[in-house]
Amino acid sequence: MRSAAVVGTGLIGTSIALALRGRGVTTYLLDRDPEAARTAADLGAGLVGAPRTPVDLAVLAVPPQHVASALHEHQQLRLAEDYTDAASVKAKPQAEAAALGCDLSRYVGGHPMAGREQSGPLAAQGDLFQGRPWVLTPAAGVGRRAVGRATELAELCGARPVVMGHEEHDRAVALISHAPHMVASLLAARLLDGDESELQLAGQGLRDATRIAAGDAELWTDIVGSNARAVAEVLGEVALELRTVVDALRDLGSDAPERHLTSRAHLTTALVRGVQGRGRIPAKAPGGLRLSGVAAAN
Amino acid sequence: MRSAAVVGTGLIGTSIALALRGRGVTTYLLDRDPEAARTAADLGAGLVGAPRTPVDLAVLAVPPQHVASALHEHQQLRLAEDYTDAASVKAKPQAEAAALGCDLSRYVGGHPMAGREQSGPLAAQGDLFQGRPWVLTPAAGVGRRAVGRATELAELCGARPVVMGHEEHDRAVALISHAPHMVASLLAARLLDGDESELQLAGQGLRDATRIAAGDAELWTDIVGSNARAVAEVLGEVALELRTVVDALRDLGSDAPERHLTSRAHLTTALVRGVQGRGRIPAKAPGGLRLSGVAAAN
Repeated sequence: MRSAAVVGTGLIGTSIALALRGRGVTTYLLDRDPEAARTAADLGAGLVGAPRTPVDLAVLAVPPQHVASALHEHQQLRLAEDYTDAASVKAKPQAEAAALGCDLSRYVGGHPMAGREQSGPLAAQGDLFQGRPWVLTPAAGVGRRAVGRATELAELCGARPVVMGHEEHDRAVALISHAPHMVASLLAARLLDGDESELQLAGQGLRDATRIAAGDAELWTDIVGSNARAVAEVLGEVALELRTVVDALRDLGSDAPERHLTSRAHLTTALVRGVQGRGRIPAKAPGGLRLSGVAAAN
Repeated sequence: MRSAAVVGTGLIGTSIALALRGRGVTTYLLDRDPEAARTAADLGAGLVGAPRTPVDLAVLAVPPQHVASALHEHQQLRLAEDYTDAASVKAKPQAEAAALGCDLSRYVGGHPMAGREQSGPLAAQGDLFQGRPWVLTPAAGVGRRAVGRATELAELCGARPVVMGHEEHDRAVALISHAPHMVASLLAARLLDGDESELQLAGQGLRDATRIAAGDAELWTDIVGSNARAVAEVLGEVALELRTVVDALRDLGSDAPERHLTSRAHLTTALVRGVQGRGRIPAKAPGGLRLSGVAAAN
């Protein structure tokens, strides 16, 4: 890959552009907000504006609900030969792109699994994707060149390409990202009821448990709303188990001890399952390691 | 304070003993499991076994449900002149101690607001409480000497003494610690349903959101169960809001778009409130600062 365009110079787009520039790829920066594109360029992420001739690959780093329209618009303008995106949801944008009549032989869905609570180009980091999974969801009928370039993009960013189906991806991120985000938000919202003196007791546990809730609310409405069914499924299960826990606690808080043993057992079960589920999260990947596949891909 | 006893040489008890030893206080270590007391002694936390004459202060570092019986037992044995504890719940142990006929003029409830996911003496750290709040809940009728010594204990451990009522403390920790722990556990338990390939996509966000769920399930059953009413109140609110979110997501996942705008607004409201609530958590205290009050208290 010699040339690329990044559409949307927020946190993700600018981080991708910085990584590409660091690997010598000529990179063009486009954003509806010219100031954001200029900021990204000032950071060394590339050149502001569209190229004169189509680049090899355009990365649509826009929120899920804008992916299909951005693909349609830029395919019309012949921005690039091939296209990918970086949105956190895959099935809905793919269906919307098909409905708009986009050329899907030249588009591969992508999702780099990295982020920060901060947004915008100034929060970008060229090594944001280092060692992280980068999901690619090639649909039937997509060209091999497009898949190859999207794969190369992930590798140039230091990420680990992972191929999945759209629905499979969306179920996975509902479980490991979107539902956790909503739960953290609901937990954090409870703090609005707390007195200052109560909040002064908060420690690292609460800070960690609610960290992701600091993310941009508009963007996360789009993400979670675009993956509504899969997220509802996970959160529906959480709601059922939460109801059991609340009932057990109300029983334990009552003066009728006849069901206390059962209620205590419900709590223990929920806590043990939490320990077990937590134990399934893979250990942190060693940071800063470049994958050997990067050199081979060039 | 010249001499102290720590009853229960787990994570918290051993950390307190290490801090006291570091400040030159003669410290005795007692545990129902003699191996745990010996391990703590090997770490330099003090001397195994009871003193010949009563120490100035005994710290009952046992789970909430054992505080009252430990107080009763050791007051009978004349282990110390004054007593405090380190349990995460305050109203129930206080009421139980009164019911057992303990001498409450010589007991001050205490709760050092620090912890780790690991448990046992080997996880102990002498600086665990450095800069952290240490809640004291002196009841009416408690002696000034007992309050003074419990305060001095907190300061010797580098913590910041905070005086609260029992109920006030229990409501506060339900909000900032116990309810978050249960929510993190329920979220982590969802991961038991995930495939290996889904979990491979997990990142730091999920790791942070579920970190506290790794805590000891038996201990947390006791903690949350001993503070059942206050925790049920917070989690009941979470359950109500979760229901709204699940309904909104199910609506957005349906093909009937007439209520999509309202449902999207529900999501945004929940997310914005999360951002706001998260913003109320005080910034991390500067680490490693010893409080000037320590010297004055000696």
